Amino acid sequence: MAEDIATEIDPEDDDYVLNSRFVSSVRLAVAAGDATRLADLLEPLHAADIADLLEQVDGGLRREILLLGAGIIDGEVLSELDESIREEVIEFLPRQVLEDAVRDLDSDDVVDLVEDMEEPQQTAILDALEDSDRAAVEQALSYPEYSAGRLMQREVVAAPEHWNVGNAIDFLRSNTADLPDQFYHIIVVDPRMKPVGYVTLGKLLSARRAVPLSDLFEDSFRTIPVTQPEAEVAYAFNQYHLISAPVVDDDGRLAGIITIDDAMAVLDEEHEEDILRLAGVGEGSLSDRVLETTKQRLPWLFVNLVTAILASMVISEFEATISQLVALAVLMPIVASMGGNAGTQSLTVAVRAIATKDLTASNVWRVVRREALVGVVNGAIFAVLMGTVGVIWFGLPMLGAVIAAAMVINLLVAGLAGILIPVTLERFGIDPALASGAFVTTVTDVVGFFAFLGLATLILI
Amino acid sequence: MAEDIATEIDPEDDDYVLNSRFVSSVRLAVAAGDATRLADLLEPLHAADIADLLEQVDGGLRREILLLGAGIIDGEVLSELDESIREEVIEFLPRQVLEDAVRDLDSDDVVDLVEDMEEPQQTAILDALEDSDRAAVEQALSYPEYSAGRLMQREVVAAPEHWNVGNAIDFLRSNTADLPDQFYHIIVVDPRMKPVGYVTLGKLLSARRAVPLSDLFEDSFRTIPVTQPEAEVAYAFNQYHLISAPVVDDDGRLAGIITIDDAMAVLDEEHEEDILRLAGVGEGSLSDRVLETTKQRLPWLFVNLVTAILASMVISEFEATISQLVALAVLMPIVASMGGNAGTQSLTVAVRAIATKDLTASNVWRVVRREALVGVVNGAIFAVLMGTVGVIWFGLPMLGAVIAAAMVINLLVAGLAGILIPVTLERFGIDPALASGAFVTTVTDVVGFFAFLGLATLILI
Repeated sequence: MAEDIATEIDPEDDDYVLNSRFVSSVRLAVAAGDATRLADLLEPLHAADIADLLEQVDGGLRREILLLGAGIIDGEVLSELDESIREEVIEFLPRQVLEDAVRDLDSDDVVDLVEDMEEPQQTAILDALEDSDRAAVEQALSYPEYSAGRLMQREVVAAPEHWNVGNAIDFLRSNTADLPDQFYHIIVVDPRMKPVGYVTLGKLLSARRAVPLSDLFEDSFRTIPVTQPEAEVAYAFNQYHLISAPVVDDDGRLAGIITIDDAMAVLDEEHEEDILRLAGVGEGSLSDRVLETTKQRLPWLFVNLVTAILASMVISEFEATISQLVALAVLMPIVASMGGNAGTQSLTVAVRAIATKDLTASNVWRVVRREALVGVVNGAIFAVLMGTVGVIWFGLPMLGAVIAAAMVINLLVAGLAGILIPVTLERFGIDPALASGAFVTTVTDVVGFFAFLGLATLILI
Repeated sequence: MAEDIATEIDPEDDDYVLNSRFVSSVRLAVAAGDATRLADLLEPLHAADIADLLEQVDGGLRREILLLGAGIIDGEVLSELDESIREEVIEFLPRQVLEDAVRDLDSDDVVDLVEDMEEPQQTAILDALEDSDRAAVEQALSYPEYSAGRLMQREVVAAPEHWNVGNAIDFLRSNTADLPDQFYHIIVVDPRMKPVGYVTLGKLLSARRAVPLSDLFEDSFRTIPVTQPEAEVAYAFNQYHLISAPVVDDDGRLAGIITIDDAMAVLDEEHEEDILRLAGVGEGSLSDRVLETTKQRLPWLFVNLVTAILASMVISEFEATISQLVALAVLMPIVASMGGNAGTQSLTVAVRAIATKDLTASNVWRVVRREALVGVVNGAIFAVLMGTVGVIWFGLPMLGAVIAAAMVINLLVAGLAGILIPVTLERFGIDPALASGAFVTTVTDVVGFFAFLGLATLILI
């Protein structure tokens, strides 16, 4: 039965390269100690898929795969691995294999690999690099974490302003060995190494040799400061459809280049961060262990406990009222829950809009007005519905009126809190995805219970 | 004061191109009817920023900008506009301006523009295109919505297998006018137009003329079926760091090409969908009006109302118990709320992991076991905490024991429900982001109230 559901989990399982049939074959090869068979299975896989395989299997199988097939772990696989698993794999690999793996990588991938390592391990890896590569990595590590300087690669194809197409092509043909693995533009620089424009390789290829490079400049040319936060870099790539962009140092000189695949990875991480933070999961991946996961989730549950106790203190003010009419205890969670949901809706739209720069100074008050109106309209609709339910269920028309009024109040407040709280947090430099949820539900719980029980005390008792 | 907060909303406001100073300048230019000044302001902006400006200002100012500066609305701006605003802009633009705007676009952008239009408007735009472009767009529209066929552009640079570098370069130089705006690879095809490999322009440029193209093939070569859902396309680009990939029809023949900037846009949309669906906001953007927004959010609030009433029905079974000990009414929302939060944590990690294919057949049961353990551990910690609070607050040791036991039960159930519900929905082909939230909180509310009030009835009363 367990196996049954497992094989059925993904309707397109068969298309997925790491489907259960494949994982079973790997398991069999490892059990038989068949290194050739294991290599045959893993060889055709992309490094990213090998990394996923190592993440998805349990720790025992992972170690056996590494023992039997250490050769498959190259630098690419290491850079694709999730951090928690990567540490485990690195500790397990023979020093020599690790050094070979790292030497193959571009400088930006080495940076990504070593930036979270402990001192002695980091030094060991840096020592394995050639001098020029080590200098590049150390330079990158001198930039702030999560900045363009960490993200960029230093391998750049640059050309002086006065070159024409022929000069550029001849240069490329005679420097084949030094070219980066992938490049899509030639950055044109002035004598002080400041980028003045860039030319796509497509334009270069289709132009005659005598055409000056400056005639082929792209309109979309933008430079990125080396200290720019990587989230801003990802925003720029997505907003302006950039494929690559030169990075410049404080003096405006060319320091490196960022390509769209790195920006896409950052965009993906930023989204993951937003969605997990909104749910009160700090960071977290499926490969974390029970204790790590517990520790990650505990603080947010603790914050929630405090806010829940606050809400309970509101209820406790009305114990006398509830003891006279227990129906209030039955209905009160509905008002709070509806407010919490409506608040989360507004909040999520706001957090997302702040991230995409759609919620800005020019429209914040209009959006607040809209959320308030939506709250009132939805509040009115559910007031009628819930008022009716209240009357039918408990036969008390005034109870229906009280829950209806509390519903309108709480949904209006939910709409306002859902926008104003994240906007205010953002203003104080706090990530709205991180902290808004707890504030918003505190507001809707407290207001919901207070409005409902308070009105009930005034009107019914 | 309002203006104060507004200008402060973004700490890096000054770096942002559409900052409040800029928007004020636009407003002034429009108020003065100064078309030249308006053009001077908008001219340097990227189409994506002009689109954002039109989205962020209110409807009145938007219409005035369009009246005074219709010339700035080209095809690029139209494709960047959010759908609801785009419809408004299109209806407002003179037919001639609209036709000119559309004629500039690549086929994939035209498809994106017309696919959601009403019949007469769509026909009008298609009629404005040249015959070959119209055929391309109509072909694309024949593929399913959200498929690779809709996403791809048909402008491709392809070369026969037997060509060498020199042939390819000569071909590019003599066909300059027909080349796509942006291209990064040459797709090499067999005589039946099946892609057999691709060559980066960097390799092409740095190789000698006599080298056969087949010597320069990239390892990362992958083709995408024309019917593949766009979410899968985005996954492949992100997983395999693709820059562009050829799209093939059912017979394996080259049909078009997808580039990473389009894949990045899809990834961004998929994330938006996940985050909004998890919050119970179907679709929604800041530029939607009050009534649209109300309609989008209503169904999810209604689902929440039903689940909240279910939970209330559980409470109502215990009315007699509550009337004997009102402290139960004060404490019961805490148990439910903690369960709801823990469930949302597990759920969000699961939904995200399903989207990134990190939760698969090979690890689903391990993850379920882990979530259960995390639930028990966190449950135990909060049981101790909350049990103590219960004792101190109400002076009833057994009440503390009851809330502690209910807490462990509900956090265990929350962990299980948070994983099993999205996995099961996925198995039945339902988007887990869409429906899981309501199910999970129903489970945690019902279990939370039932465990707490049930145990209280057994032990305390």
